[in-house]
Amino acid sequence: MTRTAVIAGQGALAPAVIAALEEPLVFALEGFAPDMPVTPFRLERLVPFLDELIGQGVQRVVFAGAIRRPRLDPEAFDPRTAQLVPRILTAMQSGDDAALREVLDVFEEHGLEICGIEEIIPDLLPSEGLLTGNPSEADRRDAARAADILAGLGPFDVGQGAVVAQGLCLAIETLPGTRAMLDFAAAHAGLRPSLNGPRGVFYKAPKPGQDRRVDLPTLGPDSVTQAAAAGLAGIAWQAGGVILLDREESIRRANAAGMFLWAREE
Amino acid sequence: MTRTAVIAGQGALAPAVIAALEEPLVFALEGFAPDMPVTPFRLERLVPFLDELIGQGVQRVVFAGAIRRPRLDPEAFDPRTAQLVPRILTAMQSGDDAALREVLDVFEEHGLEICGIEEIIPDLLPSEGLLTGNPSEADRRDAARAADILAGLGPFDVGQGAVVAQGLCLAIETLPGTRAMLDFAAAHAGLRPSLNGPRGVFYKAPKPGQDRRVDLPTLGPDSVTQAAAAGLAGIAWQAGGVILLDREESIRRANAAGMFLWAREE
Repeated sequence: MTRTAVIAGQGALAPAVIAALEEPLVFALEGFAPDMPVTPFRLERLVPFLDELIGQGVQRVVFAGAIRRPRLDPEAFDPRTAQLVPRILTAMQSGDDAALREVLDVFEEHGLEICGIEEIIPDLLPSEGLLTGNPSEADRRDAARAADILAGLGPFDVGQGAVVAQGLCLAIETLPGTRAMLDFAAAHAGLRPSLNGPRGVFYKAPKPGQDRRVDLPTLGPDSVTQAAAAGLAGIAWQAGGVILLDREESIRRANAAGMFLWAREE
Repeated sequence: MTRTAVIAGQGALAPAVIAALEEPLVFALEGFAPDMPVTPFRLERLVPFLDELIGQGVQRVVFAGAIRRPRLDPEAFDPRTAQLVPRILTAMQSGDDAALREVLDVFEEHGLEICGIEEIIPDLLPSEGLLTGNPSEADRRDAARAADILAGLGPFDVGQGAVVAQGLCLAIETLPGTRAMLDFAAAHAGLRPSLNGPRGVFYKAPKPGQDRRVDLPTLGPDSVTQAAAAGLAGIAWQAGGVILLDREESIRRANAAGMFLWAREE
């Protein structure tokens, strides 16, 4: 049997992943632990933590849910992890993606396999198709424009989401995340040039070049409710590159709001 | 004498430009008129308006202040302007910049010269240098990163501003504008990884490839106050590409808030 460790972040992804695995070991970064029984670990003691995983017979590791860059306590480092610091700090200069990739490399150097969500629950990543509703031509143009904007931001490790209405960009996701962006779009929805025209699209995609084994963008019922509050026509995302949690409830809410849900081929 | 027409937008730029000119004629797009005596015109009657300018001996036109894409009333078009609609609508598909450039072309085809702010009040566009304060190394890195992000967004006609703190992008300017972006950054300032670390930079630049005769990004005392409210270390901008209104008052407020103001060489 392959023993799997789950690094659980906050949000609804971790419980879904845990439920799909047989007797996983569940860990979480101290300070970012979700509301469930987990064993905490600290990045300052990464190497002893990896030793512990190996000692417990773990062969593969799944990252489930968002992890923010933690604040590091210089006094908490053990000597072996301390030796990794220059490497990780150097990577941080190039952004969070690079830093995370460096951490993943450390896992792999210890013989652990990093396993993506799609290997465990492929159903969570809808492939191309309309899940509900029907985007208009204008909606399709707005989705294409949002996809272009995110692709343009790719090299800069910024966001995974954008809102475009009537060809105009209302919001781009940054550090504060999706909910903050959709709140912003809701607050400024009245700026659409034609108030009775196309209502706009929330589009989500992984950053180009991001490591798809971790931190894939995630949608779910709450995203639908927030996008509905922003008055949008629907949600589109890069087919195969975005996690959709609780598909049934997401579709139900989209139908109630008259919105489409569209896994779009890039 | 060269007679100049000012197309006045909202904000403090138009009064500054008008004050610098001898007996200018002042016009404003209906619905976007600033709080001053102006002659309104409608985009739906652009060709008769241009005839009127020529008839009054106008040779050059200055655009002073932001103009938003107006809502068009199909019934208000005169026949000659109506013939331009397909051309302008086609340009709109490529974004506001393209649409505006098309409108400027129409002005020029009527023999009017479009004149940039720098030709009239060069002092409004600070060239390279520190106006006050002194950005740290971290601030300089944040400014460079924000400049890179805006450059990456260039082809998509999105924003002219971004906020970066500790290498992380807190906000990107979109349709709702600078004030909305800085309010957003202020609301989420607590997300900076190190709360006692570098406070972050508001950076502003024209969109790459934008027509520099119109709609240059503008900073002023209010920007300083808003950036201070977001807890930022300072404001940087592309030297020669950004208008700074009321330099003295802007510097006074920056000094009061302990912030730098930096016209940065790209």
